[in-house]
Amino acid sequence: MMARKPALAVVGATGAVGAVMLGILSQHADVWGEIRLLASPRSAGRTLTVRGEPTEVRAVTEESLAGADVALFLAPGEVAARWAPVAAGRGTVVVDASPAFRDDPDVPLVVPEINGHAARVRPLGIVASPGCTTLALIVAVGALHAEFGLTELVVSAYQAAGGAGRAGVAALREQLAAVAGTELGTAPGDVRRALGDAAAGPFAAPLALNVVPWSGTLQADGWSSEELRIRAETRRILGLPGLPVAATCVRVPVIGAHSVSVHARFERPVEVARAHEILATSPGVVLYDDPAAAGFPTPADVVGTDPTWVGRVRRAPDDERALELFVCGDNLRKGGALNAAQIAEAVAAELPLD
Amino acid sequence: MMARKPALAVVGATGAVGAVMLGILSQHADVWGEIRLLASPRSAGRTLTVRGEPTEVRAVTEESLAGADVALFLAPGEVAARWAPVAAGRGTVVVDASPAFRDDPDVPLVVPEINGHAARVRPLGIVASPGCTTLALIVAVGALHAEFGLTELVVSAYQAAGGAGRAGVAALREQLAAVAGTELGTAPGDVRRALGDAAAGPFAAPLALNVVPWSGTLQADGWSSEELRIRAETRRILGLPGLPVAATCVRVPVIGAHSVSVHARFERPVEVARAHEILATSPGVVLYDDPAAAGFPTPADVVGTDPTWVGRVRRAPDDERALELFVCGDNLRKGGALNAAQIAEAVAAELPLD
Repeated sequence: MMARKPALAVVGATGAVGAVMLGILSQHADVWGEIRLLASPRSAGRTLTVRGEPTEVRAVTEESLAGADVALFLAPGEVAARWAPVAAGRGTVVVDASPAFRDDPDVPLVVPEINGHAARVRPLGIVASPGCTTLALIVAVGALHAEFGLTELVVSAYQAAGGAGRAGVAALREQLAAVAGTELGTAPGDVRRALGDAAAGPFAAPLALNVVPWSGTLQADGWSSEELRIRAETRRILGLPGLPVAATCVRVPVIGAHSVSVHARFERPVEVARAHEILATSPGVVLYDDPAAAGFPTPADVVGTDPTWVGRVRRAPDDERALELFVCGDNLRKGGALNAAQIAEAVAAELPLD
Repeated sequence: MMARKPALAVVGATGAVGAVMLGILSQHADVWGEIRLLASPRSAGRTLTVRGEPTEVRAVTEESLAGADVALFLAPGEVAARWAPVAAGRGTVVVDASPAFRDDPDVPLVVPEINGHAARVRPLGIVASPGCTTLALIVAVGALHAEFGLTELVVSAYQAAGGAGRAGVAALREQLAAVAGTELGTAPGDVRRALGDAAAGPFAAPLALNVVPWSGTLQADGWSSEELRIRAETRRILGLPGLPVAATCVRVPVIGAHSVSVHARFERPVEVARAHEILATSPGVVLYDDPAAAGFPTPADVVGTDPTWVGRVRRAPDDERALELFVCGDNLRKGGALNAAQIAEAVAAELPLD
C-alpha cells in the first residue's frame, strides 16, 4: 500500500522568501499532497500559484493550520513565536526560517548537508533554519571542518540589500535611480546630496555607491545582532559550542546574494589541493576557483542559483593551518526558502503517514 | 638669513592623484618655492592651476627635472622606474607613490604618523609611499600596535572603483547608468544582461550591483598582487617582518574611499575603552564609533576627507587579545596624494638649502 503524501502548510507565503518557496515547491511537485498557503489576515484572500494551480491565501489560524503534517514558517519572528507552538502542539512538525527559535536548546538548528540528523530530535516539534548569512558560508565551512577540524573563524560579510527583505531591495533601487544620473564628485556629502528624498529604507546609512557596516540591532559591547547570530548559529550547526567566531556584517549595494570573506583556522595543516577536492565533491557546494581566467563567484552571477559557491581558496601565507575563502550564496534560496524546504522534505520522508 | 624655499617637481600631475595633489599644494601654499608640473609627453602642453596660478605641464625629461629639490612621483610604476633614479642621481629627493620601489630594502616605505623617521635614511635618494588599501588601515592599526603590540592581522577590504584610477570610476558610472533604469529580477545573468554594452573597465567582472573578489594581478598560490602588497607593506611600515597578515581584496561599487574590516590580534589583552582613547588621540585618525546613533564611517561620507576614520571597535568575543575594527579612508587623499605630500614636506623641512 502506498502511503498518502504529507500535507504542507506554508505560513508567510506572500513574502519574498515565500515567493521563492512557491517556485521550489512547484519544482519538487511530487513531494507534498495538499499545499495550503497561509499568511497574515492582511494578505488573506490573495491568489498565488503553486504547482501550476491558483491557490487562495488564507489567514493563519488554528483551523487553517489543522491537519497539516508539516508547516513551513517563512514569516517574521513574532508570527512564528505566536503560531509555531500552536501548530506543533497539534502534532504538525514546524520548520521555522525565522530567528524565533534558533537559540532554543530544545529546537534543533539544521542545515541538511551538515547536521540533517539533528532534525530527528525535536522535543518541541519545531526545527529551525539558520539565517541567510550563516547559510551563505556554513555548507562550505562545514565540509572543510569535517576534514580538517575547525578551530577559529574570522568572517567579513558583504550582505545584499535583499537580506533586509523587499523593503531593502526597493530602497536600493530608489537610491540607485537617484544617484545614477548625477555627475557625482568626490566631495564629502556628494552621495547624500544626490540621494535627495530617496528613502533610506531599512539601512542605517545610504547604500547606493556606499557600503554600510551595520545590519540588525545593537547588542552588548558594540556588536550587531547579525554578527552575534553568525557566531551562535555556526557553533550550534557544527556542534562546536566553544568555537571562536569574530564576524563583521557590512551591507553592500547588491540585490540578491550574500558574499563572505572567510578566514578559517583548523586543527591540522591544510593543503589547497585537498580543500579543492573536498569542496568540489561536497553536496550543495560549487567550487569556482580559477583566478587566471577571472573564475570566482560574484553575487550578481550567483543570485537565483541554489548552491553555495566558493572561490579564492588560499592557504594563509603565514599559517599552514588557515584557509582564506570567498563564498557567495543566494540569500532567498539556500539562504532562506531552499534550506527550509530541504529540512521539511527530509522530515516528511520519515513521518509515519497512514 | 632666511633659507630659500625648496623647489618641487610633480611628476604625473595630470592623473587622478595629481589632481588631488594640486589641491593639497594650494592649501599648503607656503611650503614650496617653485612648483613644476610634469607628465608624459602626451599630456605636456596642458595648463593646470596650482596655488591659483595657471601652470603649463611639461614633459618629464632630465632637463625638466633638473634643479628640483624634491620630486613627487604620482605616475605609474614604469614611469617611476624610468625617471626616479634619474632625478635621484642628480640630487633630487624622490617621493614615489607608485609600487616601483616599495619592496626595495634600500628605499624606506613611509607613513609619517608611524615611521616618519625612516624617510631620513634613503640610500638611493628615494622614499616610497604605500598603496591606497594599506594606507586606509595602517594609521589606525599602527596606533594600536604601539600600545598593544600587534601579532596578527586578518583583513577584508571593500575597495572603491577609484582605486583603479579614472578608468575605474568611469566604468562604474557607465555600468550604474545601464542598470539603474532596468527592472532587474534576481535570475542568474540579470545584471550582465542589463549591463549590455557597458564597459567592464579595469574590473574582472561587472561592478554595478555586484562585488568582485579580485584586484591586481595573479601571483603564486592564488593570491592577488593587491593582497600580498597589503601584507608586505604593513610588515615594512610597522617594522614587523614576520607579522602574519592574511588579506582579501574585494572591489565594491563605491566611487572614492576604501574600507577595511580588520581583525587585529595583539601581545596583550585589549580593552575597547583604551582602544577608543588611543584612536581618539592619534594624529590622522578620527574615531567615529557610536552605533546606537548609527555612528560609524561609510565610504560615501568619508570620501574627500583627509583622516583615517575608525568605527565598529569591538573586542573579539572569544579572544581578549583581538580587536575588530571598520576603517575607511579616501584612496586619493591619505591613500594617495596626502601621504606623499606629508613625506615630501617632512623631507623638505630637513634639506640643507642655501
